[in-house]
Amino acid sequence: MKYGIVAFPSKQIQDLANTYRKRYDPHYALITPHMTLKDAFEADETRIQEIAKKLEAIAERFAPLQIHASRISSFYPTTNTIYFRIEPTPQLENIQKAIQEEVQIGEPKHVFVPHITIAQKLSDAEHDDIYGQLRMTGVDEKTVIDRFHILYQLEDGSWTTYETFRLSGAE
Amino acid sequence: MKYGIVAFPSKQIQDLANTYRKRYDPHYALITPHMTLKDAFEADETRIQEIAKKLEAIAERFAPLQIHASRISSFYPTTNTIYFRIEPTPQLENIQKAIQEEVQIGEPKHVFVPHITIAQKLSDAEHDDIYGQLRMTGVDEKTVIDRFHILYQLEDGSWTTYETFRLSGAE
Repeated sequence: MKYGIVAFPSKQIQDLANTYRKRYDPHYALITPHMTLKDAFEADETRIQEIAKKLEAIAERFAPLQIHASRISSFYPTTNTIYFRIEPTPQLENIQKAIQEEVQIGEPKHVFVPHITIAQKLSDAEHDDIYGQLRMTGVDEKTVIDRFHILYQLEDGSWTTYETFRLSGAE
Repeated sequence: MKYGIVAFPSKQIQDLANTYRKRYDPHYALITPHMTLKDAFEADETRIQEIAKKLEAIAERFAPLQIHASRISSFYPTTNTIYFRIEPTPQLENIQKAIQEEVQIGEPKHVFVPHITIAQKLSDAEHDDIYGQLRMTGVDEKTVIDRFHILYQLEDGSWTTYETFRLSGAE
């Protein structure tokens, strides 16, 4: 089965992201707005239970995540994905590193850039047009995320929650 | 904020339900296939944390749920909703009752009929046509559900997971 590890921001930020996603993101209906902590990976039932145990330990170590969606950026030219940039913090880098290192589930596909996707799979022309508009609108939202989740993917591409981890530590 | 309490069946049953939902259920994109344990209710941040604590105690009391999706039924003429009927068991009735009684969050809208919706908001003609077909196809799937979730609803109607409860008791 294919799993992923994500954190959902506040309802307010999700609602804001969805005003863009519903128009510009073909994944809109597959998952609600999120910050990916670990890209999709394959695991069987036994393995995911081991991983869940390790994530539980990580959740007990880290404090709720201080999030600041500070501007709208793009991964262009790597991809035409437009996103809310989340200001990198040592806390965010440490938890992502902890998940990556302590849970040995494949090399990360990209350097970790904390973000919430609001548009993707656009043509170059669409990207330029939409990014031009959105960059001007911008975003400036702060929130605290006190939990993260393991999700699994169904055959139609949508994601269901498997497990929730509450951040209850001090780091 | 609007919350709901659901259990997701196995990926296999979700995939099967989605083959119908993608054609016949306008809620298809809002939530993955599920069995509702408690209909949508309003709660604030403090209240939902109290409810989560009570649900934790319920999850520690009950064993994983033995589920048998035994046939395709319809709520017609009450509504035109078509669903996988889940065979009622004392365990299912007891956990639903425990959630309803111990978590004082409004009267249930309906008598509890455990089910997974696969089609809804159909016209009468559509309902008769589709129900005629699906009833013949039928369903016969057994699974064990070892967790349930609190979800909350975004402004666009989609649902995000708030908390997960693992069934670890004996009842």
